[in-house]
Amino acid sequence: MTVISMLSVNCDRLSRSLFQLAEIGKLPNEGVCRLAFSTEDMLARQLVQSWMVEAGMTVRIDRAGNIIGRYAGRSESAAALATGSHIDTVPVGGRYDGCLGVLAGIEMVRVLQENNVRLHHPIEVIVFTDEERSVIGAKAMAGEIQEGPDYYARLDGTSIQTCLSKIGGAWSQIATAKRDHTEVAAFVELHVEQGGVLENMGTAIGVVDGIVGQYRFAVTVVGRMNHAGTTPMNMRKDALVAAAQVVLAVNKIAVETPGEQVATVGCLNVSPNATNTVPGRVDLRIDLRDLSQAHLEFLVTLMEKEFAAIATATDTQITMRETLHILPTLAAPHIKETIQEVCEKAGLSYLHLPSRAGHDAQEIGRFTEMGMIFVPSRDGLSHSEAEYTSPEQCAQGANVLLQTFLELDRRYAIRPTAPSK
Amino acid sequence: MTVISMLSVNCDRLSRSLFQLAEIGKLPNEGVCRLAFSTEDMLARQLVQSWMVEAGMTVRIDRAGNIIGRYAGRSESAAALATGSHIDTVPVGGRYDGCLGVLAGIEMVRVLQENNVRLHHPIEVIVFTDEERSVIGAKAMAGEIQEGPDYYARLDGTSIQTCLSKIGGAWSQIATAKRDHTEVAAFVELHVEQGGVLENMGTAIGVVDGIVGQYRFAVTVVGRMNHAGTTPMNMRKDALVAAAQVVLAVNKIAVETPGEQVATVGCLNVSPNATNTVPGRVDLRIDLRDLSQAHLEFLVTLMEKEFAAIATATDTQITMRETLHILPTLAAPHIKETIQEVCEKAGLSYLHLPSRAGHDAQEIGRFTEMGMIFVPSRDGLSHSEAEYTSPEQCAQGANVLLQTFLELDRRYAIRPTAPSK
Repeated sequence: MTVISMLSVNCDRLSRSLFQLAEIGKLPNEGVCRLAFSTEDMLARQLVQSWMVEAGMTVRIDRAGNIIGRYAGRSESAAALATGSHIDTVPVGGRYDGCLGVLAGIEMVRVLQENNVRLHHPIEVIVFTDEERSVIGAKAMAGEIQEGPDYYARLDGTSIQTCLSKIGGAWSQIATAKRDHTEVAAFVELHVEQGGVLENMGTAIGVVDGIVGQYRFAVTVVGRMNHAGTTPMNMRKDALVAAAQVVLAVNKIAVETPGEQVATVGCLNVSPNATNTVPGRVDLRIDLRDLSQAHLEFLVTLMEKEFAAIATATDTQITMRETLHILPTLAAPHIKETIQEVCEKAGLSYLHLPSRAGHDAQEIGRFTEMGMIFVPSRDGLSHSEAEYTSPEQCAQGANVLLQTFLELDRRYAIRPTAPSK
Repeated sequence: MTVISMLSVNCDRLSRSLFQLAEIGKLPNEGVCRLAFSTEDMLARQLVQSWMVEAGMTVRIDRAGNIIGRYAGRSESAAALATGSHIDTVPVGGRYDGCLGVLAGIEMVRVLQENNVRLHHPIEVIVFTDEERSVIGAKAMAGEIQEGPDYYARLDGTSIQTCLSKIGGAWSQIATAKRDHTEVAAFVELHVEQGGVLENMGTAIGVVDGIVGQYRFAVTVVGRMNHAGTTPMNMRKDALVAAAQVVLAVNKIAVETPGEQVATVGCLNVSPNATNTVPGRVDLRIDLRDLSQAHLEFLVTLMEKEFAAIATATDTQITMRETLHILPTLAAPHIKETIQEVCEKAGLSYLHLPSRAGHDAQEIGRFTEMGMIFVPSRDGLSHSEAEYTSPEQCAQGANVLLQTFLELDRRYAIRPTAPSK
């Protein structure tokens, strides 16, 4: 009998799959353009399905277009243990973001199949629809489609109805894609870290504590437009001088408040934006992320207080409007423990960190227990042609995924039912 | 014989002329659109020339298209005493900016004519070509046309050759428009103040100390573009955080350094300007003005020092490139004294102030003695449909102009030759 704790993935095979998939939509500088619902996306979906079938999985497509590859368990009545990610990319993306999670899942099943190992639980490898723009696949599985079809229309005007029908989905029946924890007992996603923490620390594996919640605010600063030559300094209400203080206040709150939050003013527009005119108005956007909703709310109150003081000091009006709020999703503690133990047994360095980017796991974690495994990405780059994770690093991540599944299979088998969420 | 010190302008007639001129290019909300070289500009030039002739002036147009109305003096060999301004407007301008200086000059000559007064010196009333965009008329008279014809092409692509030929000028002979102090002994321009100082102080007349010099700088801040979610605060090189410090440093230097300088960041562009991206680059423009070239240079060194410190503190690169430098033009002390004495005799409140906007007088002051008289503009507004100076305020300014000319006529008559410049 195979000693399953000795199993490991085939580094070359995983690497070959990554490169083969990256041929579809390949860009000149090693990048990939494979937008969701494009011809390239459909070709890639075909290829991945063929690999799933070769690995002994049955494949179905739900009404949200998610591809669900299923490797039967010894108990078909047991809830599935699932992994997966996405294979669509941003317009100038790389080979690893999303694809690694899908292909490591398939590689894991290949290893089980070639070693004639069948776990207690069914294993699912899921390719979620359109993670990069709408996250519609994972949202549908979580029953979180709240917007109408117009919200999901593509930038080129193509309707979501047309898009979904191209890939085997159906907008009118998208509600049927909803699942719960009795069907999927746990979901673990392997992904490249989209920051430089692991690389900077020289650490092999990131044990993700959760996926941060996010606020976005639109801030408007209204002063008084004036001639930059003829208006004495003491008669000005310069909206940009006030907005500069807002930018620095946001940065100071993020840097100086204890915690791991990030806050950014990435977008700022000056009006009328003419060299010889004192700015009358500035519009800027704040992006704020943290793993704790309570801490996020505390940071927002700090900002509101600072902005009110700046408005008074500069004799301007500052208004702040929430434009986005996503709740944090925490990883299940016992899944984090499992990943950590796997790393320790394998002698792999690891550290705990939040995911500050969104992932399919963020939605799936709303209805079942979730965990994420990160591997380093060179220079912390993603959404870039320069995105790179070495074959060895990819294989290390895939091995941690494999061993985590083997251990979770044991743990969940002991539980009479999947844990309530 | 007329007691010339008792002469005064006709308030109603001046006001009627202002309104009549404002009919040409009139906008719905009391504003005026009369762009240089437009049909409206040409109609207005015809009207002003007819008024000059009615007031007893001979009229010529130089090769820069400047209209020069000349009221003969008792000594035709004496250098002229000149006034004037412009009658072109910005796209949404008012009735007073420029026009008041031209029409007050004509009103002054009307008063002399109807009282049969002829001064020792010839008097000139000059309408300068295109003050609002290129200042080409006054520059040509000062011999300061250094750029090629492409520089003066209009935004709609019309060549300066075509434009000048429409109004009686000729690009190929523009150098002949150059004059010197032996032809024009002094130039005094009446203009609405384009700031709110006179109105705020409740003062009738501004005695202009000079027209400020100006620097413009293009500043580029280069940081490192990154994902706003995944990049920890301590791994960022945020170009906007550095640029915000630049904006505040410019403002602090202008506010806190003793002096009357103004400094403005009116234009700022963030790249890539996306909510979820730490800005990698910011381009901004600084406008700096003061009456003293030495003080301007001192302020620039303060900025350079501050920017270097900001670059170090934020780990960004900050570069500063001069894009414009205009030397200050000081008013002639004895012309300022004359204006001041005229105000005192007339019982009009006055104060000394710099002009922080450019005027035709700035160029003319490069080759002859120059002075400027300001009257208040409601709310300090100009380049606006809401621009307003009351008929009485206009007449007060025109009377100060008239009395100043009468006094300068006496003073210059004593001098054997025009003062060297």
